[in-house]
Amino acid sequence: MFRARHLLGIEPLAPAEITAILDLAETYVDLNRRTVKHSNALEGMTQINMFFENSTRTQSSFELAGKRLGADVMNMSMQTSSVKKGETLIDTALTLNAMHPDLLVVRHPQSGAVDLLAQKVNCAVLNAGDGRHEHPTQALLDALTIRRTKGRLHRLTVAICGDIAHSRVARSNLILLVKMENRVRLVGPATLMPSGVGELGCEVYEDMREGLKGADVVMMLRLQKERMDGGFIPSEREYYHRWGLDAEKLALAHPDAIVMHPGPMNRGVEIDGTIADDINRSVIQDQVEMGVAVRMACMDLLARNLRAQRGAMASQAFEV
Amino acid sequence: MFRARHLLGIEPLAPAEITAILDLAETYVDLNRRTVKHSNALEGMTQINMFFENSTRTQSSFELAGKRLGADVMNMSMQTSSVKKGETLIDTALTLNAMHPDLLVVRHPQSGAVDLLAQKVNCAVLNAGDGRHEHPTQALLDALTIRRTKGRLHRLTVAICGDIAHSRVARSNLILLVKMENRVRLVGPATLMPSGVGELGCEVYEDMREGLKGADVVMMLRLQKERMDGGFIPSEREYYHRWGLDAEKLALAHPDAIVMHPGPMNRGVEIDGTIADDINRSVIQDQVEMGVAVRMACMDLLARNLRAQRGAMASQAFEV
Amino acid sequence: MFRARHLLGIEPLAPAEITAILDLAETYVDLNRRTVKHSNALEGMTQINMFFENSTRTQSSFELAGKRLGADVMNMSMQTSSVKKGETLIDTALTLNAMHPDLLVVRHPQSGAVDLLAQKVNCAVLNAGDGRHEHPTQALLDALTIRRTKGRLHRLTVAICGDIAHSRVARSNLILLVKMENRVRLVGPATLMPSGVGELGCEVYEDMREGLKGADVVMMLRLQKERMDGGFIPSEREYYHRWGLDAEKLALAHPDAIVMHPGPMNRGVEIDGTIADDINRSVIQDQVEMGVAVRMACMDLLARNLRAQRGAMASQAFEV
Repeated sequence: MFRARHLLGIEPLAPAEITAILDLAETYVDLNRRTVKHSNALEGMTQINMFFENSTRTQSSFELAGKRLGADVMNMSMQTSSVKKGETLIDTALTLNAMHPDLLVVRHPQSGAVDLLAQKVNCAVLNAGDGRHEHPTQALLDALTIRRTKGRLHRLTVAICGDIAHSRVARSNLILLVKMENRVRLVGPATLMPSGVGELGCEVYEDMREGLKGADVVMMLRLQKERMDGGFIPSEREYYHRWGLDAEKLALAHPDAIVMHPGPMNRGVEIDGTIADDINRSVIQDQVEMGVAVRMACMDLLARNLRAQRGAMASQAFEV
Repeated sequence: MFRARHLLGIEPLAPAEITAILDLAETYVDLNRRTVKHSNALEGMTQINMFFENSTRTQSSFELAGKRLGADVMNMSMQTSSVKKGETLIDTALTLNAMHPDLLVVRHPQSGAVDLLAQKVNCAVLNAGDGRHEHPTQALLDALTIRRTKGRLHRLTVAICGDIAHSRVARSNLILLVKMENRVRLVGPATLMPSGVGELGCEVYEDMREGLKGADVVMMLRLQKERMDGGFIPSEREYYHRWGLDAEKLALAHPDAIVMHPGPMNRGVEIDGTIADDINRSVIQDQVEMGVAVRMACMDLLARNLRAQRGAMASQAFEV
Repeated sequence: MFRARHLLGIEPLAPAEITAILDLAETYVDLNRRTVKHSNALEGMTQINMFFENSTRTQSSFELAGKRLGADVMNMSMQTSSVKKGETLIDTALTLNAMHPDLLVVRHPQSGAVDLLAQKVNCAVLNAGDGRHEHPTQALLDALTIRRTKGRLHRLTVAICGDIAHSRVARSNLILLVKMENRVRLVGPATLMPSGVGELGCEVYEDMREGLKGADVVMMLRLQKERMDGGFIPSEREYYHRWGLDAEKLALAHPDAIVMHPGPMNRGVEIDGTIADDINRSVIQDQVEMGVAVRMACMDLLARNLRAQRGAMASQAFEV
């Protein structure tokens, strides 16, 4: 079902592939809760986490996922490394490749950098976020959280709210949710809305109250404070007033609507703390939990494809 | 015997619990010396070291302890992480908790932060030092070192010398040693002595020569150099003259007195290098060795309690 | 064959010992390519990587090597650690030693620091580069790369080019290649050539064209850009013109000459990018691959010696 060599984005995935990943992830959720040694799916394999941008949260999730699958996991903090010494991305990739990793988890500040890197290596590459492009495991963990809470992943109305323009989380979620036949609304200030967004099969709202009406899922985005210096928005206070999620605005959504946030949260900026902590509405902790399960599933599937491919190469070599 | 869910300080421990930890730690000392794979007590468990304050020495000791017990160990350097992004301690705790760790080892610059965090998570929490409050594993490793060298852990005269006021090491040691019925003397400049210390069941000396007379154990503390800027003490030279441990002052202690230091040492400031290196007096290396064994014991005991608790919850669930 | 307790440099090794290391490394190259769990040679052993100088590349290679041999591997970044707190190197060494590591991999900015440290500990020490002194595993991986490509490791003409004076890579390679009876030429600006180099059994060339004539191996060194500020060389452009490896200069070497570089490369400074990427000439990626294999072999051999030594001590103790 899932035949890809890399996981670079949601864009190239077919709906059936997305479903296959979520189905496998479900099996890791259960195991996870029992806190047993989860699997030996990656036994004897080497996973390298290569983060050119700092992210304790995402890196930890991938590290735990790999260790729970029995992989040898190595973290490389690339800010303090050869990059400083002027080495090109390609040279770094080739060097790593020569050390024979099996799985390479990469975060990079530039859109497209992870795709470029994937073309140069023999192992499976997972995009852990590249520039404003994609963050596929975030979209998949959000999808799993929605599916488990709402009982389905189609025909839902999902409002994605905040700084859409700079968010790879919003972009990957939008692509996934449209693929799975949901109705997606992008809500936020016009200065933080990407251009040409109408072609993506979604609706755009500047007025948050309008955007939330009847929504089944309210997905808040983190406000990057540096946007305020850039003149994108006037002030934290003004932002919270117009686009922060509070009880009054949330009351406009569907009575069973769930609240999501990829973290880390700015309480009192994009979301009211009481809502974030309301276990009847907020699924923010579930998202983190699903994150480990989804990453286990993705790495497990890529490892299977890698083994199959190597097996095929070995037989070919034998025949020659 | 040891039934606690967390190890947050020495304060809540009964003497019998302290003895139980030290007894188990003894068994890890022997195994340690043979350098075999030490145990699988934490097999399938995830230990996260979460250091909001830098400490290579303590973190390494916990990391080695966990790995030698077969745990999956993950280090999170929290200075460079989400903390910078304005996330609250509670949100960080809840996020981590959602990743289902079993053991969380936490160091934090604020007194009480580790207790607060422990209330929010489902796993066992070990305090690796919080502000000026407690550093329980340091006191336990000191206790084990004393017990092994002096043959007992009661009715000893222990002089704790230096910057008492700012030291969680001094505080945890004081509590433990008084609990175990030793005579504790606090020795140091009046500006570095906490107020109300008389109520803690110990004697206070500003004159180090008086304080050392007949002591069985001389426990030196690291001088935080920033205290000198703060006007607490006049100069390194003056400090060494009055409160630095040299041969002349040590001669006033019991002829068999041992010398301890939690490290890292400022040679020539709080302690003379020759004394630190004198294997007939100094047990400073033993302290480090006992550190790994004590941390193995603490994590082993907490893991047993965690398993028992989970087993009880599972049976309950079954009965319903 | 290989009886040493530490690997501190190439200097103390006999030619037969070098051959023994390379022979064992060959066995890890094959296993490496199959991507199986490579060995349990270090099972139950603790490897500590202690880097007082940043080096993502070398540290990663040692980390992967250790994990693939089944060791518990712990990284200590010593720049941010106790060193800052004024602890001496010896105290740091003694502290680590008390935690009972089996293998200690050390990089330090000062020549001789690793030797000093090795005298204070009970475990096996591997020098991962100390000042301008030695970098033995780099020379060994270069030797393995040459032996595999050229079919032998003797009677070859090897040109080492660039900043010889500041390079421990050049120094270790020179010693190894002369020991194995090769003809070594040092090529570079007079300001970057160490004094008294004539006594080392090699030839010195300032003119790169002369130095490359008929060479079987062209080993380029990384140009440390800080040398340019120091007045050692006029400019990047001038450097590239006179000592950068381009197609025209390489044409003077033997038609089958291979091109090496320890990385990370400054493309367009010491080497032309097209040559670096030419898979018919460049063995730069092979060097990285051989790096993991050579480090596995070195640690495997040291671990065997450590076990033998401990066994002997145990029998002795028994006889007494």
